[in-house]
Amino acid sequence: MGIVQTWNNSVKVFECIKCNQQFSPNDYFTGCPVCLKKQQPSSLKFLYEQDMPWKIDKSAKGMFRYADRLPYKTFPTLGEGETPIISMNGLEKELGIPEIWLKNEGQNPTGSHKDRMSPLIVARAASLNRSTVIAASSGNAGASLAAYAAAAGLRCKIVTTPKINGPWEKAIRLSGAEIIKVQNSLERWETVRKLVEEEGDYPATNYNIPPVGSNMFGVQGYTTVAYEIVEQLRECQPTAVIIPCARGDLLWGIWEGFVESLRLGWIESIPRLYAVEPFPRLAHVLQGRDYREKFRGDSRLLPSIGGETVTYQSLDAIKSSRGDAIVVTNTEVEKAQWDLAKRGIFAEGSAAITWPAVSKLVKTGKIDENDRVLLMITSHGFKGV
Amino acid sequence: MGIVQTWNNSVKVFECIKCNQQFSPNDYFTGCPVCLKKQQPSSLKFLYEQDMPWKIDKSAKGMFRYADRLPYKTFPTLGEGETPIISMNGLEKELGIPEIWLKNEGQNPTGSHKDRMSPLIVARAASLNRSTVIAASSGNAGASLAAYAAAAGLRCKIVTTPKINGPWEKAIRLSGAEIIKVQNSLERWETVRKLVEEEGDYPATNYNIPPVGSNMFGVQGYTTVAYEIVEQLRECQPTAVIIPCARGDLLWGIWEGFVESLRLGWIESIPRLYAVEPFPRLAHVLQGRDYREKFRGDSRLLPSIGGETVTYQSLDAIKSSRGDAIVVTNTEVEKAQWDLAKRGIFAEGSAAITWPAVSKLVKTGKIDENDRVLLMITSHGFKGV
Repeated sequence: MGIVQTWNNSVKVFECIKCNQQFSPNDYFTGCPVCLKKQQPSSLKFLYEQDMPWKIDKSAKGMFRYADRLPYKTFPTLGEGETPIISMNGLEKELGIPEIWLKNEGQNPTGSHKDRMSPLIVARAASLNRSTVIAASSGNAGASLAAYAAAAGLRCKIVTTPKINGPWEKAIRLSGAEIIKVQNSLERWETVRKLVEEEGDYPATNYNIPPVGSNMFGVQGYTTVAYEIVEQLRECQPTAVIIPCARGDLLWGIWEGFVESLRLGWIESIPRLYAVEPFPRLAHVLQGRDYREKFRGDSRLLPSIGGETVTYQSLDAIKSSRGDAIVVTNTEVEKAQWDLAKRGIFAEGSAAITWPAVSKLVKTGKIDENDRVLLMITSHGFKGV
Repeated sequence: MGIVQTWNNSVKVFECIKCNQQFSPNDYFTGCPVCLKKQQPSSLKFLYEQDMPWKIDKSAKGMFRYADRLPYKTFPTLGEGETPIISMNGLEKELGIPEIWLKNEGQNPTGSHKDRMSPLIVARAASLNRSTVIAASSGNAGASLAAYAAAAGLRCKIVTTPKINGPWEKAIRLSGAEIIKVQNSLERWETVRKLVEEEGDYPATNYNIPPVGSNMFGVQGYTTVAYEIVEQLRECQPTAVIIPCARGDLLWGIWEGFVESLRLGWIESIPRLYAVEPFPRLAHVLQGRDYREKFRGDSRLLPSIGGETVTYQSLDAIKSSRGDAIVVTNTEVEKAQWDLAKRGIFAEGSAAITWPAVSKLVKTGKIDENDRVLLMITSHGFKGV
């Protein structure tokens, strides 16, 4: 299709975020090999040559502005990134805090933040001459990967459950991707593992149990969310960022982007990162339970952030930023969706979940009149959930 | 809600696009009063002070970049405009033309181009201290106006038919807007007229029969599409732009934006504008039928560009740009939606309709190997049509 991906020579080495051991740049679908052997799954992060200075390409659009710190400097694009940040007039006054912003990732090409991962994953697969990419997905990741695979001329398989919502299924089917339905969320991962190991499909998402998070080339795309916040809000940065959370890819990517922004002196401190979940998972782990356990709870209206597991990367980003995990239930989300729509934002439930988290954080004193809060609205409401 | 709209003092006078008579800036919901009396409904355009030079505000985001040439320099925003233009690798080769781009308006806040009209309409209503805005809509205009009215703290009524699709209805209802269902498209306009004349509701859309197009403050928002094309494509501009068309608001706004761009020397010539419609309406009028007639045809899968009428503004933009009207049927659209999805773009049928228009124009020799073609993708596919 004439799409060329260009490897970024600034990529130096990969490092485990848990044991800090370093590895040569390559694919590590199940995370750090050392930690995996110890049965403590953990993901790897990218280290770039720090003596190769980088800067934002202000003439470029979207994620290409930050290409100096992405695994690929060129990649297939559908016009992802550079999503707007808007100020929620009125909402902040109700809560006695000076500022609430939304960053609307629903304005990405397939309507969710996943469009920041897919182009880099597709670029990686193409550079390895893989013909097929594969993802376990309840909807957004699948619709996104299918679209970018189509744009790049790759085959695509999406492993999902019978519960997948109509609009997502239509988007995936029209793109020409194959939909494979299995019984439940964990079974999706087994299926992905099998197809990766036996057929050489290139995986976009996790398939390990306990999970390590999505493909690390993709997760790098989420660092651009932090860079955009830094660029767009200039001298008035948030002190707290609220992020819908399942396996914590977005959470981790935002954390990494802020760490780099701090290192470069673009910001004076890193905002606290708050992960919102539909029932206690991270909340339990932060109170002492093992991050490799399974947790049960109701996420019926929140397919995009369901599942029984947590990841080490989520835990690390929350602790390192002095943030927390907040539980918002199905019932609270229905009202939240309405609350946001009444201010002009039609968000998927799994994105609207960030709004009730703010008042909970205000109630417990974790956010107060000195805070400026940014909510990640990860997906628009037209997916029907 | 703390939203302040600022009138642009560069607005000088309004001029009828048909009889060229001038009028003081005000609301003319049924278009030029002189032409209306002659039963030749026609819309008015804005004339700005030409001795008040203007420039693009390169530090601003979205439509605010062009605020010097919009009716309001500030207005309620949800992050509209600045949608990406992407190159369709491969599609152009199939057709023997050097370049095909898509401009994806589905990446606006409520998922369609209508988000360029709504903020200016809401700003206008607020400046007149009107409490309620109203629109006749099959979906996109309604979802958009409802969202911006909600953001601005105004009441909103959407007059539609029982056929409105679920995702749109949900978006409108959640925003708090009132949905009024009447039997058919033309009856919507009668209802809007009644509510405007009897209750003082401020209209976003046409209600005249024959129609004159949508609220002219809103239509000004579409000029920003042309400005963005000029800015984004720099030295390599399109020679033809393909636009889905019902009452021709987008078509007219793009025309006006290119006229201004030419006047300022930003471009060397204006691209030919091609309007795509689901059955012959404009096509008949271009062949001699009266633009005030009603035309019948099938637009089942294309609610966003249905209806039996045309407008004078559509005709003028096509003729002045040496463009044409192209008919693409329901059946062809189903394949087009699939064709675009296979390249990564999940478009509403009423937007995908632009793609088959290209091959038709190539077949008749109206577009050839010297052309660079830009398709307006007006809305994403998650609305279920």
